[in-house]
Amino acid sequence: MERFDVIVIGAGPAGMSAAVYATSRGLRTLVLEADDVGGMIGRVSTVTHYAAVSEGETGRAFAARLRAQAQAAGAVIETDRVTDVRLAERVKPVTCASGARYEASRVIVATGMRKRTLSILGDHLLAGSAQDEAPHFQGRAVYVVGGADGAVKEALHLARFARSVTIVCAEERLSCIAQFREAVERTAGIRVIGGSTLHALEGDDQVERVVVRDLTTGALTSIDDPSCGVFVYAGATPASELAHDQLQLEGGFIVANERMETALPGVYVAGDVRAKQVRQVATAVADGAIAAINAAQYQPR
Amino acid sequence: MERFDVIVIGAGPAGMSAAVYATSRGLRTLVLEADDVGGMIGRVSTVTHYAAVSEGETGRAFAARLRAQAQAAGAVIETDRVTDVRLAERVKPVTCASGARYEASRVIVATGMRKRTLSILGDHLLAGSAQDEAPHFQGRAVYVVGGADGAVKEALHLARFARSVTIVCAEERLSCIAQFREAVERTAGIRVIGGSTLHALEGDDQVERVVVRDLTTGALTSIDDPSCGVFVYAGATPASELAHDQLQLEGGFIVANERMETALPGVYVAGDVRAKQVRQVATAVADGAIAAINAAQYQPR
Repeated sequence: MERFDVIVIGAGPAGMSAAVYATSRGLRTLVLEADDVGGMIGRVSTVTHYAAVSEGETGRAFAARLRAQAQAAGAVIETDRVTDVRLAERVKPVTCASGARYEASRVIVATGMRKRTLSILGDHLLAGSAQDEAPHFQGRAVYVVGGADGAVKEALHLARFARSVTIVCAEERLSCIAQFREAVERTAGIRVIGGSTLHALEGDDQVERVVVRDLTTGALTSIDDPSCGVFVYAGATPASELAHDQLQLEGGFIVANERMETALPGVYVAGDVRAKQVRQVATAVADGAIAAINAAQYQPR
Repeated sequence: MERFDVIVIGAGPAGMSAAVYATSRGLRTLVLEADDVGGMIGRVSTVTHYAAVSEGETGRAFAARLRAQAQAAGAVIETDRVTDVRLAERVKPVTCASGARYEASRVIVATGMRKRTLSILGDHLLAGSAQDEAPHFQGRAVYVVGGADGAVKEALHLARFARSVTIVCAEERLSCIAQFREAVERTAGIRVIGGSTLHALEGDDQVERVVVRDLTTGALTSIDDPSCGVFVYAGATPASELAHDQLQLEGGFIVANERMETALPGVYVAGDVRAKQVRQVATAVADGAIAAINAAQYQPR
């Protein structure tokens, strides 16, 4: 069982920031990530609002920067899903899906959130991330389900490629920030169907018909649109399963103090999985820095 | 008196992040900065540890990115020193050194910190920022006073140009992070005089002699080193004068809750001037985002 000074679970902005700070403080650092470095931000079309980010930086390019920086700092990054961690132990054993086992006296939980999926939809009918798929929808119609920041940002991105973009959202008015709402108003190819939800997608190998339900009247509207694309943004849920029965949760999010300390010695939490008000790259990165700085000061008995 | 939705005082990472978030939420935003955009980070040789920052990015390049991003977002940035702000008013009037006056119902105080100077030193004997001056010390000797992160980072930068770099610090061992300490150990041209302080600089138009005092014995050592450069890193103090008698302070820092709200409605604080544990670009940027998001939700009565 390989020993590290600190194990960071999750390689989104919070985990990668924590890794950079931990190595800079002299800690031998392992980052374990089940999917891709970058987390949810790695799959967005553009990274917006993060201070000093290059204009138009894609999620993928941003994720590549995070990886290069942490590796240059000396962090070890492994792609492996953590299946078990015993956080109450003094030296905490971590078990991965591959069977690999590691241990450390400090663990930073930065597992982020997981996109919610709509159960009514067959996966084979849905496109992947807007970042990857947008060029494939050149000249075709696209439906985006959701009116919050993430959905509308991707709708704006898709509008650069698609023949038309239709946003279906539960609220009468887009609930996203003013910047995105105004951009939608300025963009000719986007229409908004408010007060509505996606009821069904019909078709065989590809979507042929989109059925939208009016949330007030219950009326169904079928839109024939062969070979259109559908992107569903149904929010996200905290990926806090590992912490169940070990750490205090609040609506599924892990509770920590402003030093990112949990009630268990040597256990810290950072990023979207933490119970807090604002979930942005900026706050994830700060959480990671604070968690690592305190982890470096922690002296296991 | 020109009216804005929010006035941000200070254009360091906290203030510029706040400006980007405020404009994205539809607020008409003014940033007032007495000196240069970027604040203290704009004067460092390299920006380190901030997640996804380009390797080797200079403070000046980083500051230019902050400015371009906030301006592209639509924020108005004015170089003017705020001399008075009445934070308890519903609509808060702001007066500047130029005589210009503005008002807004929301103010974000992001005034950061100010470098401490050593009173024993004549200013004319001291070099400016390491970022600007380092190339001028090509082949010459340089003294860096201070052993914390900021001082040692600049010493490492100066070592790329100077014939020799001498770090004078009060602690026996450098108090900076492990990454910088190890880099010093690997760098042949740097020596460390620990347990000591700078006692005097002697010379006329330029430094000719550096006098170092041993903090244990009190012994003075004179080092003849004509035309050497001296950089003093004596820490920094919160630039919170504007808030005196208006906001709660803690050791000179402004107190806020985790939403960056002060006790006064519509008044927020972000960045190094806030009472908090960790002062890094990462946490300043997060503070700015959180302050602006809450300022945008605030509805003045």
